[in-house]
Amino acid sequence: MGAVSPLSFWNDTAAKQSIIEFVERVTRPDTPDFVAEPDRIAVFDNDGTLWPEAPLPFQVAYVIDELKRRAPAEPQLSADPMVQAALGGDVATLMAGARHDGLMRVLALTHAGMTTGEFNSAVQMWLASARHPRFGRGYDQLTYEPQRQLLAYLRANGFKNFIVSGGGADFMRVWAERVYRIPPEQIIGSTGTVKYELRDGMPELTKTVDYVFVNDGDGKPAGIHQYIGRRPVMCVGNSDGDQAMLEYSTIGNPRPSLGVLIHHTDDQREYRYDAKPTSSGKLVSALQAAGERGWTVVDMKVDWNRIFAD
Amino acid sequence: MGAVSPLSFWNDTAAKQSIIEFVERVTRPDTPDFVAEPDRIAVFDNDGTLWPEAPLPFQVAYVIDELKRRAPAEPQLSADPMVQAALGGDVATLMAGARHDGLMRVLALTHAGMTTGEFNSAVQMWLASARHPRFGRGYDQLTYEPQRQLLAYLRANGFKNFIVSGGGADFMRVWAERVYRIPPEQIIGSTGTVKYELRDGMPELTKTVDYVFVNDGDGKPAGIHQYIGRRPVMCVGNSDGDQAMLEYSTIGNPRPSLGVLIHHTDDQREYRYDAKPTSSGKLVSALQAAGERGWTVVDMKVDWNRIFAD
Repeated sequence: MGAVSPLSFWNDTAAKQSIIEFVERVTRPDTPDFVAEPDRIAVFDNDGTLWPEAPLPFQVAYVIDELKRRAPAEPQLSADPMVQAALGGDVATLMAGARHDGLMRVLALTHAGMTTGEFNSAVQMWLASARHPRFGRGYDQLTYEPQRQLLAYLRANGFKNFIVSGGGADFMRVWAERVYRIPPEQIIGSTGTVKYELRDGMPELTKTVDYVFVNDGDGKPAGIHQYIGRRPVMCVGNSDGDQAMLEYSTIGNPRPSLGVLIHHTDDQREYRYDAKPTSSGKLVSALQAAGERGWTVVDMKVDWNRIFAD
Repeated sequence: MGAVSPLSFWNDTAAKQSIIEFVERVTRPDTPDFVAEPDRIAVFDNDGTLWPEAPLPFQVAYVIDELKRRAPAEPQLSADPMVQAALGGDVATLMAGARHDGLMRVLALTHAGMTTGEFNSAVQMWLASARHPRFGRGYDQLTYEPQRQLLAYLRANGFKNFIVSGGGADFMRVWAERVYRIPPEQIIGSTGTVKYELRDGMPELTKTVDYVFVNDGDGKPAGIHQYIGRRPVMCVGNSDGDQAMLEYSTIGNPRPSLGVLIHHTDDQREYRYDAKPTSSGKLVSALQAAGERGWTVVDMKVDWNRIFAD
């Protein structure tokens, strides 16, 4: 490592060392491990990996706030049992099942019929006013500083960073370019079908409930294939929902590869959890696999000297 | 225009002029029409726009060759009426309907159950041996030279080029990076769902017939939104199937934009057609709209001094 570390918010521990060694190894020309720039694909989960997912995934907080705003004027909306669960804060019901059917239903109900422009405006309005219940900041002010450094470090070394998240692609695209410097075409998330039409002569795309692709679990390698079309050499996640894409990136990859798991261990500065079976962020099976697979486990309390921007 | 034209395979006609004027206009800093680099998104149709689509779209030729190769050993395959249509060369039946249901069925039948690696190998083998019936060359040797110059010219001016095609994304990705210098993550096409699994401990993605997204007609702006997440400022197509994405790129776009239609007018060097209702490449409605919309129409016979590489 040089005199000035490119990852100053990371402590000088084995986790940081493994990342820097990997990047130096694949960027050294004329060696067997060299990876050409177009193949330096890095994929990052978002919720719990680049920003928190507690006490609720932030998009769930958005949906609940939207329902509170809209339900009084739309009684047919509040009649739905899953909307009632959301309004009552019953997140376990929304998140139950591998595909989070309740949440998907509420997302569909709140998003269907909106144009993409209307949706963007609604998310922007929410970001401008909503505050995280514990940290008292706008949600887009709560991304992890060490991870923003890591994204910049990879970019400086010719990597192309992608987000591969179970969250909605359209939701992340509203703010991710500004916050992570990741452009919309490098954001893969859950998506619903949109319908194109000329309305009063102007092109409009309207969200529908016809088909929803859930980019989580086994859906993540499928999404990576569909959107990127080649295997990543670096994959960063924090939960069992990321295990499939960690496997896909690192097992049997003809190129050198690095898997990284962010472990939430810091209840002082952030949250401490891994086994939370009823919500997102459960990290049991992937943590067990990390040793055998050689994935780097980042202990947030030990490995990061800063969590959020001051 | 400078002394050395960047588009030497284009004649000095109005079509070339309109492209160069547009690129110069949006790349001149400190002017109202300046477009920042991340927003310089250009989308290109493939069949009939970057390479020929006659006498058959090249992927249809691939599928028919695949069926001929596989049918003798797989009688359940040849029992299907659409497979029989394909083996008999009845392309009109395969291409009938806006969504080309027959072709989609044959694609599904031939692709389902293959891993992505097996599919890549099959396409590569075909490219190495199959020859175009009229030109006697491998299909990947038949891309349009003026268009490869245009792609390079746009790239040199900070544009990011995407393919937005009704053809299969996986089919194009096998050869498009080598031929067009467009990486797989910038290729949007029709896609089927893939299923992820660990097979004997190794990650595999297998093609299924569960859901097929057809990236044509109104599907093209929907695909652009889903994959790119912002409106292109330049759009190049050649058929009515490209009209929706031409509209989406140029009508009411807050940024300056350019729509381009390639018109097949040269039966000596390539093909001459526009109204072919039973196959791909029908160009009637979009050609009528071009005047009103201000789209540039490229007359291949007049505007291009070369079609293919020597």
